[in-house]
Amino acid sequence: MKVGVLGTGMVGVTIASKLVSLGHEVMMGSRVAGQEKAVAWVARAGKGASEGSFAACAAFGELLFLCTQGTVVLDVLGAAGLENLRGKPLVDVTNPLDFSAGFPPTLSVKDTDSLGEQVQRLLPDTKVVKTLNTMNASVMAHPEPVGGGDHTVFLSGDNPTAKAVVEGLLLEMGHTDILDLGGIETARGVEMYLPLWLRVMGALGTADFQVKVVRG
Amino acid sequence: MKVGVLGTGMVGVTIASKLVSLGHEVMMGSRVAGQEKAVAWVARAGKGASEGSFAACAAFGELLFLCTQGTVVLDVLGAAGLENLRGKPLVDVTNPLDFSAGFPPTLSVKDTDSLGEQVQRLLPDTKVVKTLNTMNASVMAHPEPVGGGDHTVFLSGDNPTAKAVVEGLLLEMGHTDILDLGGIETARGVEMYLPLWLRVMGALGTADFQVKVVRG
Repeated sequence: MKVGVLGTGMVGVTIASKLVSLGHEVMMGSRVAGQEKAVAWVARAGKGASEGSFAACAAFGELLFLCTQGTVVLDVLGAAGLENLRGKPLVDVTNPLDFSAGFPPTLSVKDTDSLGEQVQRLLPDTKVVKTLNTMNASVMAHPEPVGGGDHTVFLSGDNPTAKAVVEGLLLEMGHTDILDLGGIETARGVEMYLPLWLRVMGALGTADFQVKVVRG
Repeated sequence: MKVGVLGTGMVGVTIASKLVSLGHEVMMGSRVAGQEKAVAWVARAGKGASEGSFAACAAFGELLFLCTQGTVVLDVLGAAGLENLRGKPLVDVTNPLDFSAGFPPTLSVKDTDSLGEQVQRLLPDTKVVKTLNTMNASVMAHPEPVGGGDHTVFLSGDNPTAKAVVEGLLLEMGHTDILDLGGIETARGVEMYLPLWLRVMGALGTADFQVKVVRG
């Protein structure tokens, strides 16, 4: 599949590399084509990897991953061009973390709205699927080292077809337990989990953990 | 141990019954002595069970469980009498759920404060331990039916001795994986998990589930 990955940070690089290793054609997008980290990633990732502007990346992908910091999401999507995203599944892995008052961060949107819903409102013709935001980048792409991969990844989104496509990709990536929470408004739940994730990370002294929903 | 359980709702009744079954002496507290649900509970629970006002309950217990709705917590503690709670461990299992705008509820306090911290500020000489608020009442008291009890209960609190006492009680109740998150400010994490808990309940169609923190 042709996949566009918007963002050149740890999450973007880790997901893009995983997708290339699975045989997908991946373009990494950044503010301007030729950005240093994107070019370095293409050199490392090899065959199937390319890079370009956010707009080129969005036009390239049949499916997009949104992997930027939460604070710049709406900005990045504007740069990507709403017309380039029309009708496509957009996998939103972002979190509305606000580090302006230091660590631990607070949430810039919560409780009565979510970043996932904001993205869906901005892009009414794009099929937003919120997922993977509840774990560290390395666990997103390499679930197996944590408990043999036996942990839960959540899905939120309004379009069942897009969710099915994303579910297929998650299975390819090694995830085994995918829990569909319902419409995009359930992104409020997975985003508000982040404050607990941060405290668990603090207690364990590592981000290499995940949660499993244990059924009764 | 002499335990006071503040609250006569589902959580209070379920925890109080479990503690009696474990051989503890338990007084259930409500606004006025002789409250119908408390009297009915005493009749069912038998030996070791008693009931009284919030103040009588707080005076009786060497350790207290706070099991009321989040909206009335500060009120109930005022009625219990700060002097009756002084120096004692207080197990706070409440959640700041606000149902005033319908379902799903929002959180009346979040992100930069928590109900656990509010309780600790109101009762500076009481040893507040936030725990058990991340699961259904039946799972709090009967962890075994959910995945054989292999799931995680969190602890937040500033007093190590009180946390050790509460940890002992949790083990008696059948919990197997207790994760100490740190000081009472980490209650922000476990309280903000509730919006996700509510969506998982919706997706599974049952409250009989829990989460396990899977370590890498």
